[in-house]
Amino acid sequence: MTSPFPQLDANGRLRHLITLDGLDPGLMRELLERAKDYLCPPGRLPPRGDDLRGWTVANLFAEPSTRTRASFELAALRLGADAVNLDVMLSSRAKGESIIDTIYTLEAMQVDVFVIRDAQPGIIEFVARHVGDHVSVISGGEAHLSHPTQGLLDALTIQQHKGGFSDLTVTFVGDIRHSRVARSAHRALTALGVAELRLVAPEEMMPEPHEFQGARRHSSFDDGIAGADVVMMLRIQRERIAEAMPTDIDRYHELYGLTAARLARAKPQAIVMHPGPMNRGVEITSEVADGPQSVIRRQVANGVAIRMAVLAHVAEARRRRAP
Amino acid sequence: MTSPFPQLDANGRLRHLITLDGLDPGLMRELLERAKDYLCPPGRLPPRGDDLRGWTVANLFAEPSTRTRASFELAALRLGADAVNLDVMLSSRAKGESIIDTIYTLEAMQVDVFVIRDAQPGIIEFVARHVGDHVSVISGGEAHLSHPTQGLLDALTIQQHKGGFSDLTVTFVGDIRHSRVARSAHRALTALGVAELRLVAPEEMMPEPHEFQGARRHSSFDDGIAGADVVMMLRIQRERIAEAMPTDIDRYHELYGLTAARLARAKPQAIVMHPGPMNRGVEITSEVADGPQSVIRRQVANGVAIRMAVLAHVAEARRRRAP
Amino acid sequence: MTSPFPQLDANGRLRHLITLDGLDPGLMRELLERAKDYLCPPGRLPPRGDDLRGWTVANLFAEPSTRTRASFELAALRLGADAVNLDVMLSSRAKGESIIDTIYTLEAMQVDVFVIRDAQPGIIEFVARHVGDHVSVISGGEAHLSHPTQGLLDALTIQQHKGGFSDLTVTFVGDIRHSRVARSAHRALTALGVAELRLVAPEEMMPEPHEFQGARRHSSFDDGIAGADVVMMLRIQRERIAEAMPTDIDRYHELYGLTAARLARAKPQAIVMHPGPMNRGVEITSEVADGPQSVIRRQVANGVAIRMAVLAHVAEARRRRAP
Repeated sequence: MTSPFPQLDANGRLRHLITLDGLDPGLMRELLERAKDYLCPPGRLPPRGDDLRGWTVANLFAEPSTRTRASFELAALRLGADAVNLDVMLSSRAKGESIIDTIYTLEAMQVDVFVIRDAQPGIIEFVARHVGDHVSVISGGEAHLSHPTQGLLDALTIQQHKGGFSDLTVTFVGDIRHSRVARSAHRALTALGVAELRLVAPEEMMPEPHEFQGARRHSSFDDGIAGADVVMMLRIQRERIAEAMPTDIDRYHELYGLTAARLARAKPQAIVMHPGPMNRGVEITSEVADGPQSVIRRQVANGVAIRMAVLAHVAEARRRRAP
Repeated sequence: MTSPFPQLDANGRLRHLITLDGLDPGLMRELLERAKDYLCPPGRLPPRGDDLRGWTVANLFAEPSTRTRASFELAALRLGADAVNLDVMLSSRAKGESIIDTIYTLEAMQVDVFVIRDAQPGIIEFVARHVGDHVSVISGGEAHLSHPTQGLLDALTIQQHKGGFSDLTVTFVGDIRHSRVARSAHRALTALGVAELRLVAPEEMMPEPHEFQGARRHSSFDDGIAGADVVMMLRIQRERIAEAMPTDIDRYHELYGLTAARLARAKPQAIVMHPGPMNRGVEITSEVADGPQSVIRRQVANGVAIRMAVLAHVAEARRRRAP
Repeated sequence: MTSPFPQLDANGRLRHLITLDGLDPGLMRELLERAKDYLCPPGRLPPRGDDLRGWTVANLFAEPSTRTRASFELAALRLGADAVNLDVMLSSRAKGESIIDTIYTLEAMQVDVFVIRDAQPGIIEFVARHVGDHVSVISGGEAHLSHPTQGLLDALTIQQHKGGFSDLTVTFVGDIRHSRVARSAHRALTALGVAELRLVAPEEMMPEPHEFQGARRHSSFDDGIAGADVVMMLRIQRERIAEAMPTDIDRYHELYGLTAARLARAKPQAIVMHPGPMNRGVEITSEVADGPQSVIRRQVANGVAIRMAVLAHVAEARRRRAP
């Protein structure tokens, strides 16, 4: 399902980033390249920029303390922007009109970029349809549907460690049905030409049949991980285990937890990913999470870099539209 | 009732801004002029300044996510200040002394400007009486009494659209009794020489007889709006409707809601204002709120500019006192 | 009990600041000296620096509005850092691993300094043991055990008013048993060579016998204050009074409240300190708190300066380690 909403401007540059659906792979690769400019070894001060000097970025997250909010805030500050945080869940407001009034109000204060996380499908696009031409809307996570900067940072992490995408087998494991992370990673990796995608989950955590087209489905983790280059574990919500497993958490761990023994069935150089926060001992053991094949912290570092790349891209695109 | 508390310094410049009561119209006009320096067309980066470089502005709002807090925070950042937000309702503290201890503590950290919103009358002036000579206190809204920057931004918005004040008829509609917005707008517009002020409200939402001197009172909206140049709708609190209207919200809308039909009774070029957030469908229809006569978003943009003007004014006044 | 955890780097400079236990008095004196560079008279703009330009300081405080959080935030901003606030109580998280994952995540976002307040003993050191070589961890208050920047600011305040430490008698009064402020002040003042330390408290608020070695214990305030140079009052928690005093708050005030009459028993030039927030009328009268011998606001101003000094010190130490 390609989004009917135009994220691109007339020059084919991103004005918004709401979904990876239908996004040109060349544009994705360009964002990955740009993000590399913002990476540096730990212990060095991170690269900064002036691309958003004078800009205002408003972070609208219902929960103020999420790691994603901090990641976007640091990305904005490191590019020279002013950043304001507002703890608002737009969709929790009583009426459709009041969502848009909140946005119009902030837009009138000359907010240039809205970063929005919302639990209700469609709200972020709804906002993007209503803001002025110069304003950009970037998703910080939309319901179970989409988390585009996460998809890009996952792609960047794979590219860094595997050099490319075309020969790879990537296995997603866990609550794929409810995961915006998996959906966006699927979009990115499919567009970038990953050879094979596999889904491993208990029945109740599998997505609908029409979703994740082209991916192979496995109920057995041992089958799904065999020969994989990338194992992407997903966060499990404990209340969902009760639904999915008539038994309990130990049983979930036994069937779908990533252990060293199970990881040995993947390719020898396979990497292990997790979007965080992890439930150690449930979907992943500490031995694996902290082991030599884990690239979990690298994902976080890439997250700030990708967000800087996206912000710098939309700023450049706006300057091109209205010099 | 003119405030006995001196907001001005020995040079006749604002040291604090707590109320518009008794404020010299010349000073108001000067603030409106200064605010225009901070306005620019949408899509341009907003004007910035260095007037508060090295200053610290502390925003003390009980609710962290209000639009007014964001407006003040952006005003401070765009003038080069450091801004810290503290979620404190001073008056909710147990004792009078602890209010002042909170302020003394922040003052000792070299906070230069306090922006305070508080639900208890008198708290903001109480703070201003106790801070050091170099510290400024600016009201972000005081109980039902006063919201001076809102009054100024409303005046600026009228001036922009009508060129001046002296020939105008301005109608306030709604819960005037409980509205700090209406009280401050009344002060500003009276001082600036508006020809005629009208109040439209159900009996229970009318202010006390001694208040809003010089204004005409109408229980009929159709009478009160006839020939008006400016229609200023106020936010209605739903729990107040129950008190005021034995019937219900639909009945309130029928009697006191601004519709296109009713607006047609005002002057053809009349403008429509609302301080936000709006209850669309209650005190105002979307057709009017988003229509060509609405200047509601302009009010918000003017809000940041007015707050920048007030901050820059008090900074200049302080430098003049102690060069 | 000297902490076994090495806060110092190979050059003998602070990498972390978690406790004053075992800290070299020369290093303490150096921090006090450096803090003086960041002090200025009220009404002047505070000294700023570039020592943390490009750095990121993350404040992890469970309660977002504490004065200590604001003090650290201003210290970081005035040294040119980016500061992000996260409302997290690390120890409230379910598992040990998830604490460290929170930290790893922020570290991967290139946070350079963590300022942490936590109610659980050992958490802050636990974090310091796990962060990368270039990252510093600074305590913002640990359980009832330690509050090192408070201990240093108290020492600085005494040094400013008394010129030194070696001839002084310092009396701590109140709930010493539960006070991290008293413990850190005891460490600092003992290391800096105070002649005599006295503890005044009801039995239930006295620390364990092995703690506060070298201090004299008094159940009578009149005895404990006689001839003192410094009277350091501690904040009392009202729920603790019920335990300690079979009677009530008035009785507590009568026995352990600092009044002008009682203060007259100290040396004529004695200074009165309190870490705030004060319970006026309980542990201290307003007459004393606001009187000429009170240096309570000076403590707060010194707090920002000490925190700037600590941040600038750890930044300098890191540059020396990895130029």
